[in-house]
Amino acid sequence: MEQKYVIGLDYGSDSARALVVNATTGETLATSVKGYPRWSEGKYCNPSKNQYRQHPQDYIDVLIATVKGALAQCSADVAKNVVGIAFDTTGSTPAFTDANGTPLALLPEFEQNPNAMFVLWKDHTAIKEAAEINKLSKEWETDYTAYEGGIYSSEWFWAKALHVLREDEKIREKAYSIVEYCEWLPALLTGASSSKDVVRSRCANGHKAMWHPKWGGLPSEEFLVALDPLLGGFRERLFCETETAEKSVGKLTKEWADKLGLSTDVVVAGGAYDCHMGAVGAGVTPNTLVRVIGTSTCDVMVASHEEIGDNLIKGICGQVDGSVIPGMIGLEAGQSAFGDIYAWFKRVLDFPLKHIVAESTLISDDIKAKLIEEASERILIELTKEAEKIPVSESTVIATDWMNGRRTPDANQLLKGTITGLTLGTTAPQIFRALVEATAFGTKAIVDRFVSEGVKIDNVIGIGGIALKSPFVMQTMSDVLNMPIKVCNTDQACALGAAMFAATAAGVYPKVEDAIAAMNSGFAKEYHPNADNHKLYQAIYAKYKAIGEFTERELFHA
Amino acid sequence: MEQKYVIGLDYGSDSARALVVNATTGETLATSVKGYPRWSEGKYCNPSKNQYRQHPQDYIDVLIATVKGALAQCSADVAKNVVGIAFDTTGSTPAFTDANGTPLALLPEFEQNPNAMFVLWKDHTAIKEAAEINKLSKEWETDYTAYEGGIYSSEWFWAKALHVLREDEKIREKAYSIVEYCEWLPALLTGASSSKDVVRSRCANGHKAMWHPKWGGLPSEEFLVALDPLLGGFRERLFCETETAEKSVGKLTKEWADKLGLSTDVVVAGGAYDCHMGAVGAGVTPNTLVRVIGTSTCDVMVASHEEIGDNLIKGICGQVDGSVIPGMIGLEAGQSAFGDIYAWFKRVLDFPLKHIVAESTLISDDIKAKLIEEASERILIELTKEAEKIPVSESTVIATDWMNGRRTPDANQLLKGTITGLTLGTTAPQIFRALVEATAFGTKAIVDRFVSEGVKIDNVIGIGGIALKSPFVMQTMSDVLNMPIKVCNTDQACALGAAMFAATAAGVYPKVEDAIAAMNSGFAKEYHPNADNHKLYQAIYAKYKAIGEFTERELFHA
Repeated sequence: MEQKYVIGLDYGSDSARALVVNATTGETLATSVKGYPRWSEGKYCNPSKNQYRQHPQDYIDVLIATVKGALAQCSADVAKNVVGIAFDTTGSTPAFTDANGTPLALLPEFEQNPNAMFVLWKDHTAIKEAAEINKLSKEWETDYTAYEGGIYSSEWFWAKALHVLREDEKIREKAYSIVEYCEWLPALLTGASSSKDVVRSRCANGHKAMWHPKWGGLPSEEFLVALDPLLGGFRERLFCETETAEKSVGKLTKEWADKLGLSTDVVVAGGAYDCHMGAVGAGVTPNTLVRVIGTSTCDVMVASHEEIGDNLIKGICGQVDGSVIPGMIGLEAGQSAFGDIYAWFKRVLDFPLKHIVAESTLISDDIKAKLIEEASERILIELTKEAEKIPVSESTVIATDWMNGRRTPDANQLLKGTITGLTLGTTAPQIFRALVEATAFGTKAIVDRFVSEGVKIDNVIGIGGIALKSPFVMQTMSDVLNMPIKVCNTDQACALGAAMFAATAAGVYPKVEDAIAAMNSGFAKEYHPNADNHKLYQAIYAKYKAIGEFTERELFHA
Repeated sequence: MEQKYVIGLDYGSDSARALVVNATTGETLATSVKGYPRWSEGKYCNPSKNQYRQHPQDYIDVLIATVKGALAQCSADVAKNVVGIAFDTTGSTPAFTDANGTPLALLPEFEQNPNAMFVLWKDHTAIKEAAEINKLSKEWETDYTAYEGGIYSSEWFWAKALHVLREDEKIREKAYSIVEYCEWLPALLTGASSSKDVVRSRCANGHKAMWHPKWGGLPSEEFLVALDPLLGGFRERLFCETETAEKSVGKLTKEWADKLGLSTDVVVAGGAYDCHMGAVGAGVTPNTLVRVIGTSTCDVMVASHEEIGDNLIKGICGQVDGSVIPGMIGLEAGQSAFGDIYAWFKRVLDFPLKHIVAESTLISDDIKAKLIEEASERILIELTKEAEKIPVSESTVIATDWMNGRRTPDANQLLKGTITGLTLGTTAPQIFRALVEATAFGTKAIVDRFVSEGVKIDNVIGIGGIALKSPFVMQTMSDVLNMPIKVCNTDQACALGAAMFAATAAGVYPKVEDAIAAMNSGFAKEYHPNADNHKLYQAIYAKYKAIGEFTERELFHA
């Protein structure tokens, strides 16, 4: 029997990767990673304003480079036997299009205009617009934020669209529709020639565009116009229906088949957000929390319609039918900083290296640069080594994990982090240990919220850089949660998930669950909770909660 | 007219200094500083148990060395015209004596026994005994702690005495009486030959031994025996009366005059604690808070009997008639960590230097040691430079100053420090600025307590290392307090204060106030509050207090 192959494409914040995967076994044959060329030069961004834009040409460039790069590593017959491809991308990362569905920045007159580009998920220029959406939603007869955790974010679709419309007259004149990153790539490859032909992502729009069947799709025209007349007409020109990602969007056009070195028989699956396909790549099942653990976390679950019923899960990021696995409710939550907190502490400790050693005249500039780099890189390694030795019973420093606000439970971007229990004897490793515990407590707060809202959690699966690389962090999390945590046996769970969607869309499997069963990577490691530590952590967690409640109530508000 | 000279002796924790001062002008002719020899070798101490003992022979050795060292810097006629000497020392630093008033460690059989030595102020071996004293005081018909802030400390006279008696049978057998460091040196030099002849310090015993005229001196025999029968009989063998330090204790014996190169006409003044004589050296007047600002602070005020009346000033360290200036009530308060908090943060930031650079193979051990030392020493300098640039309006990190507990207001050694308002963008200098502000807020809490208890404060005088060396810290303090702060024009205010007591005891001046007027060093600098900054700090101070109240109530208790 001839083998079938699929290509999973995972398009992140800084780079994109293509995985060539055996559709039967799940085995990865080749991986190719490329950074976005314009983005890596810092173009179109203004970090001081939290403006982060990406040029659609960057996406096209890496698409060709990664697919061809991965195929080049395989024998010639593999390309011929690729049957499907699928994309997962960051989100909400929308861009305005013309009536043809072309992102405006691909038109010559908008080529250098950041407002014509994709507004990356972490762009925070639309804070004011998000606040207006929240205010109006609470006053409106229908709360359109209800299935998105009840609080609309400046990182999301409508806030960004409105902000750009207000800011840029030229965009106002030309903008016809709006597209999400994960929708545009499948549309491009399958030759959609009008914005109406773009197959719309259930995952993206259900989680970030307030799309829900209960109110017939997107929020009503009246609501959008009440928000700002500038939004008038977009609803009609956008869409009513959304599709789950295991469905075929179409086949590769001749042009794209040639560009990628594939056949025109290749099926293109629907798009979805990276963490949601990552959960599939990790083998998500009901009652399992899948965490993508990196600079922040994205936490994904699936639950049956029976389990959720009509419940609105309070204070999470969203609940969308089919956003992860078709036929089940996908649930999203997350911590707005995780590894970023450790990296922050490293930067604080960097001070004598970067500001003092850097000025020393005792050694040559050459050696100095090497020494500073070497030492700076070792900080987290050494902190971990020392922090691991401290017994939980002597862990008397307590921190909260809100250095980047709190995403869930109950989003609040005004919150800030705290470290307490400090004495004149407190050491850097003790503080680091407290920060690791704080990120685990933040995890527990999310788990507790799911459970108190009726969504049972038995175990956790970790994917992402920290899950694979930091046993200390993962063991602490297991101890705090009193739950086993499995870590996936792949560092490309999102792209593997995309490959599973590609295989399902291409008909290799009837259902996503079957693709998971056949193609999963298994687990590299399982952490088991230490009961004694858990008991001690329960007392510290109570203090973490008390500190959190106090700082939220008394210190950090508008 | 022939000049008269006095010698002021300031005996600190690690070293002692002698100042030869012109008794008319206050001009310092010579200074000699010596470290305690046995102490500097770490003898008789056990830091892991917070056991800190000093050998009386150390005191004798540095006495001879510093006085002769200072006189050697002067012309020969100076020694002939020295008319008085006075001591200030650390305290409460008591030792057991035999019936002759000799500290037991000077007897051959106790020479190496730490329990026979002076128990340095910072020795914390008597925590249990202090708790017992506090418990019994609250149950007793008289609260003997009333004039010592209502909370007895493990650093004080009776707690230490009881601890040593319980611990050491040999001491129990031999101990006849107890003497404070500041009392013993004058007694030694004037030839007191029985423990009853030792002139007792108003300052030491009023502040730390629960001595008060209201109950006829020391606590009653019944109270002491109820505490522990081991204390039985000591009260009778100790003393009823105490004396203020401007009174002559006697003249130098022939033996000591010879040893020191002085005449037998030299008058020896009474002893007192260092900060109290330091306040005099700084020119203390009513409504002025004199702060000795170093690793911690000791805050001293004087107030008239009319101002205080029968008031018990709640939550300070003590109020004692004549402990600073005879005829006025001396008031003591303080922060249990000040410069120590900055030094702690420096140690935290040291981590990459001491743990990583130290292991690097990129540079030779020689250069490495120099580099680490150089960089480590520059940390606080560079932090200050960067922290100074941050406008108060952008000072969003908030800390409390309780890393070593809280001495005043309302002593609580269980408290710990907090840093909050942390974001992923928070830098080391921002944290340092928050710590500096926290120490200033701790100052304000003390000032506010004095004021709310009816003791008016118009201005502050700073002495000690930080007052002289850190304009940033002093300006912040002035802005937070909204008060001018003067800094004394001497780095030896305590020894200069001792010289003023020596001059008064020798009859050069009728009163201590006259010695202050004639001999003060003036001010090197005056800080004026910035009204805008003060306004901003009021809001931050309210948060400091809220954080403090929360952590005290919810987090840090027994």
